[in-house]
Amino acid sequence: MLPIKLYSFPTPNGVKISIFLEVLGLKYVPTKVNILKNESKSDWFVKLNPNGRIPTIEDPNTGITLSQTGAILQYLADKYDTDLKYSYKFGTPEYYKTLEYLIFQVSENGPIQGQANHFKIYAKEKIQYGIDRYITDVKRIYGVYEDILSRNAANDSLYLVGDHYTIADFALVGWANSLKNLEIDIHQWLLLGKWFDKIINLPEVQKGLKIPEV
Amino acid sequence: MLPIKLYSFPTPNGVKISIFLEVLGLKYVPTKVNILKNESKSDWFVKLNPNGRIPTIEDPNTGITLSQTGAILQYLADKYDTDLKYSYKFGTPEYYKTLEYLIFQVSENGPIQGQANHFKIYAKEKIQYGIDRYITDVKRIYGVYEDILSRNAANDSLYLVGDHYTIADFALVGWANSLKNLEIDIHQWLLLGKWFDKIINLPEVQKGLKIPEV
Repeated sequence: MLPIKLYSFPTPNGVKISIFLEVLGLKYVPTKVNILKNESKSDWFVKLNPNGRIPTIEDPNTGITLSQTGAILQYLADKYDTDLKYSYKFGTPEYYKTLEYLIFQVSENGPIQGQANHFKIYAKEKIQYGIDRYITDVKRIYGVYEDILSRNAANDSLYLVGDHYTIADFALVGWANSLKNLEIDIHQWLLLGKWFDKIINLPEVQKGLKIPEV
Repeated sequence: MLPIKLYSFPTPNGVKISIFLEVLGLKYVPTKVNILKNESKSDWFVKLNPNGRIPTIEDPNTGITLSQTGAILQYLADKYDTDLKYSYKFGTPEYYKTLEYLIFQVSENGPIQGQANHFKIYAKEKIQYGIDRYITDVKRIYGVYEDILSRNAANDSLYLVGDHYTIADFALVGWANSLKNLEIDIHQWLLLGKWFDKIINLPEVQKGLKIPEV
């Protein structure tokens, strides 16, 4: 296959894709889009993604250009994980449970933790209301993940769905890793702490976290 | 088929599912989960959805229980739109473009407009920083939709993807309809205003917006 082009920056959203590309062992070429210099709002990039946000991929094998981490992860799983090492068969309850938790990550965990980061770390004014609102909700959300793991206890709570990793896990690990920036220790949730200690140490995850090089 | 059970409340997230069930013409039984009385945090509901948020479905035809609007819409399309009236064939560029815009709705439009609603309408303190931050981003996001429609101009800009409605459109219409609560007129975006005036008047959309009855 031809290498996939990845336009990204090593944020918790960007690394979702480099991590999963590493996990799948696919050939890819990362291009750094420096969001600190607003490069994701440049004309050439907005042509690829009208939303002006990393990551985006171009796959010359299919001609598909795609943005939004949830869509990219699903595409890569559908197209390149055909032996279902990190997926479940299309149409099964596990397939849709994976999608449910993937959407939970992209629609609640990511956006809310992003707002918490903004108010706690980046905002030029200190707005205590915003800090409290989003830190509280971040903690609630990781509590939901703890509950999700407890419902899958048969597999020693190492996977969000069933008996192996899926895109629901790989979408979360980068965000879970950046919880420390909010001074929140993930080990306060027993199962989640155990889940994190294992997945964060996978060599593919360690490698993907650092791509593209800054 | 047996009727699908829908646990919901007529919020912009809740009505995504009732609208699409109406569009598909499927039999379903709505159960009101009164979020104003915190019923979505009750034990019986959290058993169905660990995240404690509406909407959730139970489909007795497949045994699947599912939450997160993005996942539910994809499930309903996969399972019940087999003649591709509101979908594109699995694996095609249009299929993934639909998924990209669906994820854009659930991960940016919904969460950010939700925060704008909070700071502008519901917060007990008036936090101008929060109002400005989220209103600005809501307008940016609808500007992105305008751009998306302009890229699909061949079809008179009535559909987000290709030449017919998809779950990307039906996910957005309830949120677009509630823009008026922020005193934002969708007609300031020319293509989007035209898109809205057509989709909002579909009888299935009008019916779905009012389910469950409050």
